[in-house]
Amino acid sequence: MTAMTTTSPAARRSAELEPLIAQRPQDFRVLTGDRPTGALHLGHYFGTLRNRVRLQRQGVELLLVIADYQVLTDRDVAEHLAERVDDLVLDYLAAGVDPATATIFTHSSVTALNQLLLPFLSLVSVAELSRNPTVKDEIAHSRQATVSGLMFTYPAHQAADILFCKANLVPVGQDQLPHLELTRTIARRFNDRYAPVLPEPDALLSPAPLLLGTDGTKMSKSRGNAITLGASADETARLIRGAKTDAHRHITYDPQQRPEVSSLVLLAALCTDRDPHDVAEDIGSGGAAALKRTVTDAVNEHLAPLRARRAHLARDRGYLRQVLREGNERANTIAEQTLRQVREAMGTRY
Amino acid sequence: MTAMTTTSPAARRSAELEPLIAQRPQDFRVLTGDRPTGALHLGHYFGTLRNRVRLQRQGVELLLVIADYQVLTDRDVAEHLAERVDDLVLDYLAAGVDPATATIFTHSSVTALNQLLLPFLSLVSVAELSRNPTVKDEIAHSRQATVSGLMFTYPAHQAADILFCKANLVPVGQDQLPHLELTRTIARRFNDRYAPVLPEPDALLSPAPLLLGTDGTKMSKSRGNAITLGASADETARLIRGAKTDAHRHITYDPQQRPEVSSLVLLAALCTDRDPHDVAEDIGSGGAAALKRTVTDAVNEHLAPLRARRAHLARDRGYLRQVLREGNERANTIAEQTLRQVREAMGTRY
Repeated sequence: MTAMTTTSPAARRSAELEPLIAQRPQDFRVLTGDRPTGALHLGHYFGTLRNRVRLQRQGVELLLVIADYQVLTDRDVAEHLAERVDDLVLDYLAAGVDPATATIFTHSSVTALNQLLLPFLSLVSVAELSRNPTVKDEIAHSRQATVSGLMFTYPAHQAADILFCKANLVPVGQDQLPHLELTRTIARRFNDRYAPVLPEPDALLSPAPLLLGTDGTKMSKSRGNAITLGASADETARLIRGAKTDAHRHITYDPQQRPEVSSLVLLAALCTDRDPHDVAEDIGSGGAAALKRTVTDAVNEHLAPLRARRAHLARDRGYLRQVLREGNERANTIAEQTLRQVREAMGTRY
Repeated sequence: MTAMTTTSPAARRSAELEPLIAQRPQDFRVLTGDRPTGALHLGHYFGTLRNRVRLQRQGVELLLVIADYQVLTDRDVAEHLAERVDDLVLDYLAAGVDPATATIFTHSSVTALNQLLLPFLSLVSVAELSRNPTVKDEIAHSRQATVSGLMFTYPAHQAADILFCKANLVPVGQDQLPHLELTRTIARRFNDRYAPVLPEPDALLSPAPLLLGTDGTKMSKSRGNAITLGASADETARLIRGAKTDAHRHITYDPQQRPEVSSLVLLAALCTDRDPHDVAEDIGSGGAAALKRTVTDAVNEHLAPLRARRAHLARDRGYLRQVLREGNERANTIAEQTLRQVREAMGTRY
């Protein structure tokens, strides 16, 4: 069920953290978030969203950034931004994020957070920014002909996201570790050069399940191969009916040899909280049709309460805006306090 | 008296502006400023400061940014920053800047201005930032082993300085034209992509006189070869007595062949508002000693009222802080308004 098999120092540290979180959740503050590029899908849900809700229910403070500045690379996006931000708030709340204790905010609304980019940029070199593998990856996958200054400086901006609220825990995938390492470097350099203001946050490695899109490629909002949280039961059935499988009638769980079939088995397993091998055994030689029926039922049943909440909340856009307004206010209060401390430490208070 | 002999399009445009400014000064808003790296000297005074005061007296609105973030590259600077900021405010006021209508502010105090860096970075490519000759120059002259992200993104930050207050006039030297061109590009791209919010500012090319330091090299705060505005009459005399000249007794004004002597002649001419050739002719074969007496008298006499004001103002640091506080307040009001318009145009208002 996990793609993480090596035990890196970060992975070991992450494993040590779980019991500490369970013991003293009030000592932890988590920063995480998403770009508002479209509705969240099952990959997000089982990859991160469910884990966030679990942490919050344990008593950990949660801050969720909606990274609106990171999507402003073409006009089309800007036109639908407000709508997509609403949808993200809706998906968070439907999934169980409690806005009474979680802070949901948009990047562009927290001015003091954004100002932190400047001192932080003074603490990293162009060479360090260029080396960052996530940025390299972003650049490789970018539809743009050129790399924008915003994309290039993204790791420093992410440091501002995390450090503005002194988050000490950041749920990440293995691939995002270099980003977080740069955040830790920036915090360390700031503290060494000026004064000990910023914590060095720990990574909480989340073993994201390997869910593929219905076409067998990476699940992605833009490829139309993903089941969104807000999809109806019928849409879900239709998407799964059209999912790619393979020529073998007997269903097994074998992610290496049978990636498409195994992804479907895994999805049913995640929804029913079972072992995927058991799910596959139950279907046995029922073939792709039986598999797809099982998956459809599992997804629709698992998501039914979430979707009911979502439908209910969707009727009240005013409430979604209010949640965001309150989150933005809280984030601004926190950011202004940190910026004050940062400016004090740097001697830029006159 | 001017180093600018070619007539580039920017130079022609700049020449066309002067009569427009004289006619309708209220249509113009100037943004300019300095890094708080030390006391201002005669090079700054005759190069830019006097020109700013002239523009203000004509009725042009003046905004002066003290670019504190741009000097935060080493610990030493941070420790003396507040003092250096005070000194800069002091030099501005002593030179005749009127804080009743001019806005003097520090970078780090205007949060909404700094936030503009983010959308602006999304409008420029890494290639464009790398190509900027002023950044190349900064990099070449930098004492740092590596180039920081802040230095690299400086042209976009300068665009935020200029555009936050919708300045339409920026006094620059020929070498800073590429910077301003990038600001114009950012404004144009923003307006094209989102909505017509930002003016494309014009360069006001100031023919900076070629004043050398007393050692014959570039006048510079850090080389100890500059006469600061706050220097006493005695210090001024001592510095000029030690100035480099040449072996020819007969004094002439010939910047190409006799740069050190001509710089001294030019300085006396600037202080007495005379033609440097006339100044040289008057000294004739009096030699270096006569030249230096003439220059010392001219500088001390010209600066006497400025220095008296400076000494008077220096006794009241509380007043300097008040000027800065009021300037920061005004700059924040302007910046918040522009950021609101920018966010509205980008669709990032929720």
